[in-house]
Amino acid sequence: MKKRILTGDRPSGRLHLGHFVGSLANRVKLQDEYEQYVLIADVQALTDNFAHPQIVADSVKELVLDYVAVGLDPTKTTFVVQSKIPAIAELTVFYLNLVSLNRVLRNPTVKAEIEQKGFGDSVPAGFAMYPVSQAADITAFAADLVPVGDDQLPMIEQTREIVRKFNSLYGDVLKEPKALVGEYPRLVGLDGKAKMSKSLGNCIFLADSEEEVKKKVMSMYTDPNRIRPTDAGTVEGNPVFIYHDAFNPNKDEVEDLKRRYRKGEVGDVEVKQKLAIAINVLLEPMRLRRQTLEASPEKIEAILAEGVKKGRLVSEEVLEQVKTAMKINYKF
Amino acid sequence: MKKRILTGDRPSGRLHLGHFVGSLANRVKLQDEYEQYVLIADVQALTDNFAHPQIVADSVKELVLDYVAVGLDPTKTTFVVQSKIPAIAELTVFYLNLVSLNRVLRNPTVKAEIEQKGFGDSVPAGFAMYPVSQAADITAFAADLVPVGDDQLPMIEQTREIVRKFNSLYGDVLKEPKALVGEYPRLVGLDGKAKMSKSLGNCIFLADSEEEVKKKVMSMYTDPNRIRPTDAGTVEGNPVFIYHDAFNPNKDEVEDLKRRYRKGEVGDVEVKQKLAIAINVLLEPMRLRRQTLEASPEKIEAILAEGVKKGRLVSEEVLEQVKTAMKINYKF
Repeated sequence: MKKRILTGDRPSGRLHLGHFVGSLANRVKLQDEYEQYVLIADVQALTDNFAHPQIVADSVKELVLDYVAVGLDPTKTTFVVQSKIPAIAELTVFYLNLVSLNRVLRNPTVKAEIEQKGFGDSVPAGFAMYPVSQAADITAFAADLVPVGDDQLPMIEQTREIVRKFNSLYGDVLKEPKALVGEYPRLVGLDGKAKMSKSLGNCIFLADSEEEVKKKVMSMYTDPNRIRPTDAGTVEGNPVFIYHDAFNPNKDEVEDLKRRYRKGEVGDVEVKQKLAIAINVLLEPMRLRRQTLEASPEKIEAILAEGVKKGRLVSEEVLEQVKTAMKINYKF
Repeated sequence: MKKRILTGDRPSGRLHLGHFVGSLANRVKLQDEYEQYVLIADVQALTDNFAHPQIVADSVKELVLDYVAVGLDPTKTTFVVQSKIPAIAELTVFYLNLVSLNRVLRNPTVKAEIEQKGFGDSVPAGFAMYPVSQAADITAFAADLVPVGDDQLPMIEQTREIVRKFNSLYGDVLKEPKALVGEYPRLVGLDGKAKMSKSLGNCIFLADSEEEVKKKVMSMYTDPNRIRPTDAGTVEGNPVFIYHDAFNPNKDEVEDLKRRYRKGEVGDVEVKQKLAIAINVLLEPMRLRRQTLEASPEKIEAILAEGVKKGRLVSEEVLEQVKTAMKINYKF
């Protein structure tokens, strides 16, 4: 039997090349080897978008389009919308009793994110508690493995602690998940900032048209000290070359461009044009899959409905076992 | 249309005379004037009984027996078991986003209870968050009124804040409950301690037999300075007379006993015997109702099933409106 993987995203906007490099490409590989669940975490997205629920709602279908576009196959990967799975909320409430307030607030991942979000004195309680609801996400689907980067390891450890606490109190019911630690590279933004991020406005979206990609690539930040094409340029840390390494499969072309760039024998325009072509080659099959699915919105709904159905089946079974162990699975 | 009231108990043991004086007698009155829901808060009981789930499970049916015994009528009062209402957990998770962590932890009622429970450094997160889940309890049933004592007012205020926050963000969906502040006297224990409490072992349970009541009353703490029946005794603060005031409807008899007690003209035995009689007169009809219901356990299950059915209907409607307002009431 295949092991089960749980991954997921907060629906809060379209996915971009940063997501592709960081997780989506990996998921496309994983779906053949594992039984893969992707949680569309709308409830969690509302923890920091509670004032903008429409963004969350719109993004749910956008995500499905992005997933299918990128090559996730709904017959191999199950997409589950979090708010459609009441078992997750029920498990969250149960687990809140199994972890001390201090332990949750000590979670380094949460501490870092709280700082980053700039909540100041008014961290929403739901945000502070999200390691607990993440434990509910993972265990509701009895996931064996959760693909994470190093920085997310404390989250998985928290889940494992909650599982062990539950099992020690109520018997061996919950599956203790393992982190599937991988390299989830972070992609720099078009502007050279450390991270491609919608809020920074420095993204190429998976849904961008060929023209948009060209335009964005042509305006990319490169070596700021290079004025003329004949100036020697710096390749290291240069976003344009980072992208070439990430997206241009023609390694000879990339090496040739780097060599000439260092010597001042190539203009930015040529480097960028070739990059735009490479990115468009990557995105073109995605555009086709997207167009096909966009043309039949009822298919998107069917994919979501099927995912919810499967997700409910699995999660209700876990919840049933949990309630039985907790002696609250009354007959009436 | 009758206004709706929500009250409730944590199922963590049998009910006693302290509960009768403090809330049950009042509920029996309220059920005629209001549509009354009584929440059997098993999930909340697990917040501080998570290691002893069997106590919680056993107490659910005990509570129904106590309720019916005391005169609550299942056709007027709806008994709802919390864990059977997933909408409460879902609302809890939503509301956690609407309140800051600092605000929850500032709640004076919770602060006092945390101190009282002696959790030290390891307050369960669920316990600290329970004002939020209480807001979910109250709003899930669209309660107009919540009977509380003064000390519980901050809890209702927290619910009202969450309701106002929700409604200001998402539209006028949730009903803002009001506190029905009443006198909910606290009954001293048999041992003279400030509170009758199961954990102190100083209770007369509603289910106690006539003999048990006699035995417990005869061993009650009275005026410790009175050695002989001919010594003048103190009536004020004397548990035996507090109980006479609370449970003996024959006011002349009580006044006569007090007068003679002060003068040293009556023995403890007579005072206690008359108290035991008065309490047994109160409890006798309860015993009969309890016996009848105990004889048909399928009736207890039917009462619980009916309550859950009604509770689900009401709470699912609220949840549906909430999800629609939050834009996550997808069609698929």
